[in-house]
Amino acid sequence: MPIDSFLSRLAAAGLTLPEPPEPGGLYVPVRVLGGLAVVACQFPIRGNERAYAGRVGGELTTQQGADAAALAALNTLAQVRRTPGIERLAGLLRYELYVQTAAGWDEFPKVLDGASRVFLAALGPEVGAHARAPIGVERLPWDMPVELTATFALRG
Amino acid sequence: MPIDSFLSRLAAAGLTLPEPPEPGGLYVPVRVLGGLAVVACQFPIRGNERAYAGRVGGELTTQQGADAAALAALNTLAQVRRTPGIERLAGLLRYELYVQTAAGWDEFPKVLDGASRVFLAALGPEVGAHARAPIGVERLPWDMPVELTATFALRG
Amino acid sequence: MPIDSFLSRLAAAGLTLPEPPEPGGLYVPVRVLGGLAVVACQFPIRGNERAYAGRVGGELTTQQGADAAALAALNTLAQVRRTPGIERLAGLLRYELYVQTAAGWDEFPKVLDGASRVFLAALGPEVGAHARAPIGVERLPWDMPVELTATFALRG
Repeated sequence: MPIDSFLSRLAAAGLTLPEPPEPGGLYVPVRVLGGLAVVACQFPIRGNERAYAGRVGGELTTQQGADAAALAALNTLAQVRRTPGIERLAGLLRYELYVQTAAGWDEFPKVLDGASRVFLAALGPEVGAHARAPIGVERLPWDMPVELTATFALRG
Repeated sequence: MPIDSFLSRLAAAGLTLPEPPEPGGLYVPVRVLGGLAVVACQFPIRGNERAYAGRVGGELTTQQGADAAALAALNTLAQVRRTPGIERLAGLLRYELYVQTAAGWDEFPKVLDGASRVFLAALGPEVGAHARAPIGVERLPWDMPVELTATFALRG
Repeated sequence: MPIDSFLSRLAAAGLTLPEPPEPGGLYVPVRVLGGLAVVACQFPIRGNERAYAGRVGGELTTQQGADAAALAALNTLAQVRRTPGIERLAGLLRYELYVQTAAGWDEFPKVLDGASRVFLAALGPEVGAHARAPIGVERLPWDMPVELTATFALRG
């Protein structure tokens, strides 16, 4: 999709893209190859600082978990936006959301909808449609509540 | 592969496809794009109800874990079957199986073979061949013992 | 990339490929289809035996975790190398590293750099560039500290 429409949709949804975090290791934020744009793990980081820490259902409410997921989705889009080849973006395929959960907590869909809503708002219902998967894990880097990995398809 | 051969293989293996569960959020069950059919997380659900709950090695035996994995694989196939484009199915690429495990339990291959057997029976040895990955996790939605994500390739 | 350059780069980096482990179940180690080479889970195994066991930050130091990740990356390359179609290898897309962590441990990037360094040394900066994702999990098969899943793109 044209980058203009990507950015104007974002603005219309009241969303602004954060400055995407720099990779903290020997990897690239987005790998464009073979018709895919594969994004490295994105976190709820703003201005290179954690915006959320702790366990969803523990230190953080479900709503805060959804907000953290939305921020990880915005960082994903910010990474994709600055990647050469964005004009050829055909659509989001699937994202995985790893959630650092507290014992007994079980409201995954509400947290994931935080991220799904951002992708649909930014990319529209056709390009932004996606499959997804929630995974509750023991530990994420820097005690962050969520981590998002996304894979996009490009036009040939 | 033609949908006829898909369904007759299933019948020959004594397998019937469940009614696939509806997505519980802002996502699609199968995303077809860029030569791939990427399936959203599937669970051991039958008739929109959990067929299994708890931890493998705890409330559930390894055999029940394998049966739950087989049901998640059947739901995956049920989702794929009703997706436009199934005739172009070239093969299963990889599936990930997240397993909610009890402390000390360690029989992943037996549980995954429950799902692998379904894919091979339904799709045959060429289309159904696949890579896979087992991941033992702390918590899955609705206390379900397994969650399966699958990616298929389509013919151009 | 030509297999000659793959192997000579490895030798120049002082790396040798282990004999790749046989799959312990109904799956294939590498699935080549639809322009992708999708690798099944790889572990820190050498000579069909575990080279590392336990939790990173517990029984194992961070450095041992990085060494285990490097060995899983070498096994990934060993699997890819013996797969027909390697000459068409265009590049690594993304790998996920699942890490069995001890409570309070938090040095994911150091562990993942162990794997990233192997991929970059073996494949060079262009073919070997990649996205990645670290996931701290409760339990991996055979009490292994890390598990690696990788996806490569092939030339058409």
